[in-house]
Amino acid sequence: MKPILVVFSGGQDSTTCLMKAIAERGAENVHTLTFAYGQRHALEVKLAEEIAKEQGVASHKTITVDWYREITHNALMDETTPIGREAGAPFPNTFVEGRNALFLLTAAIYAKSKGILDLMIGVSDADYSGYPDCREAFIRSMNETLNLAMDCRFTVYAPLQHMTKAQEWALADRLGCLEYIRTRTLTCYEGIPGDGCGKCPSCKLRAAGLAEYLSTKEPKE
Amino acid sequence: MKPILVVFSGGQDSTTCLMKAIAERGAENVHTLTFAYGQRHALEVKLAEEIAKEQGVASHKTITVDWYREITHNALMDETTPIGREAGAPFPNTFVEGRNALFLLTAAIYAKSKGILDLMIGVSDADYSGYPDCREAFIRSMNETLNLAMDCRFTVYAPLQHMTKAQEWALADRLGCLEYIRTRTLTCYEGIPGDGCGKCPSCKLRAAGLAEYLSTKEPKE
Repeated sequence: MKPILVVFSGGQDSTTCLMKAIAERGAENVHTLTFAYGQRHALEVKLAEEIAKEQGVASHKTITVDWYREITHNALMDETTPIGREAGAPFPNTFVEGRNALFLLTAAIYAKSKGILDLMIGVSDADYSGYPDCREAFIRSMNETLNLAMDCRFTVYAPLQHMTKAQEWALADRLGCLEYIRTRTLTCYEGIPGDGCGKCPSCKLRAAGLAEYLSTKEPKE
Repeated sequence: MKPILVVFSGGQDSTTCLMKAIAERGAENVHTLTFAYGQRHALEVKLAEEIAKEQGVASHKTITVDWYREITHNALMDETTPIGREAGAPFPNTFVEGRNALFLLTAAIYAKSKGILDLMIGVSDADYSGYPDCREAFIRSMNETLNLAMDCRFTVYAPLQHMTKAQEWALADRLGCLEYIRTRTLTCYEGIPGDGCGKCPSCKLRAAGLAEYLSTKEPKE
């Protein structure tokens, strides 16, 4: 089995990716990389480390990008800015400029040094807020740029690319980890793990997806 | 005049870019960004700041990427590794994996926050050591990836792309800054500014290019 590096935040999306990678390749071939980039909740980074450890991954690393706040501004990295969408703005003010590009580039540099050419990231363009770096066109272009930059053949896997939240919950269920992801991961903008605050856009999206999936699920005998 | 951000190391290439940008747009429209990423010589970062100040740029910023050494290895960031090319290696061990991608991505994030969409970098694919991230194909792909990542229209300028070192010196001469670049910039792997140690691959390339240019230059009346 070829090793793979998962860009891992400890949220629903990247934990679903992690569980998929482990199911397919075995935990001994799965590595995780987490970024502390000034996001609102330091708990996110700690939780990612805990989940990686619980799942027995081959290695886990955290990189601190302490200058991210210095070069851009958004509500995710500034607790004094209320989360929302300004009039006429193309996407909500939680968008962190260049984040997925920075994550994938750093992951690729690190992976290559470990002899790993497969990367996985939990982006999705369905159900989401129109973040440009969650689109398939970006992921493909990024993959090509990484190959050109480092003269090798990376493969960027984005298994959630076209999945709605309901489909993600279905995948988690098939992987046997729906309850684990429901209770253990952190997606809430208020920093509350599991079902979260229930009020922020992220919690609402997560809860609606879960309700949708559960409503369509065949009742067990 | 539209503002432009120059990725600036204080070396011959990026200083030539800086002088070109200033000649074309005026120093008040030129911003510089320097990276301290664990390169051998801390002097490089200090020198870049000094040159930016001397040239009166609109703003200068240094970003410290203190985790670069943690995720990759090369002779430029490790003084205990002799500079050279290992048998069968596609390029010398001074290649820093993903460096120009990281510089351009960070520059783009920072530039966008300042309302700047023009970026300049001093890469060249002539006379060089086969670094993959100095090729035009990489620069074009990176430009496209940046646009997709942040949903805007950056333009990455690489005015030295196809220039030999001799042609670079000719450009510096036309810009009236040949002596300034010769005496003030740092390109030497041993960290000696100006004409450098004269022995490392970087000094030899620089000196040969200068000799070539001077030998073909029309004598002044």
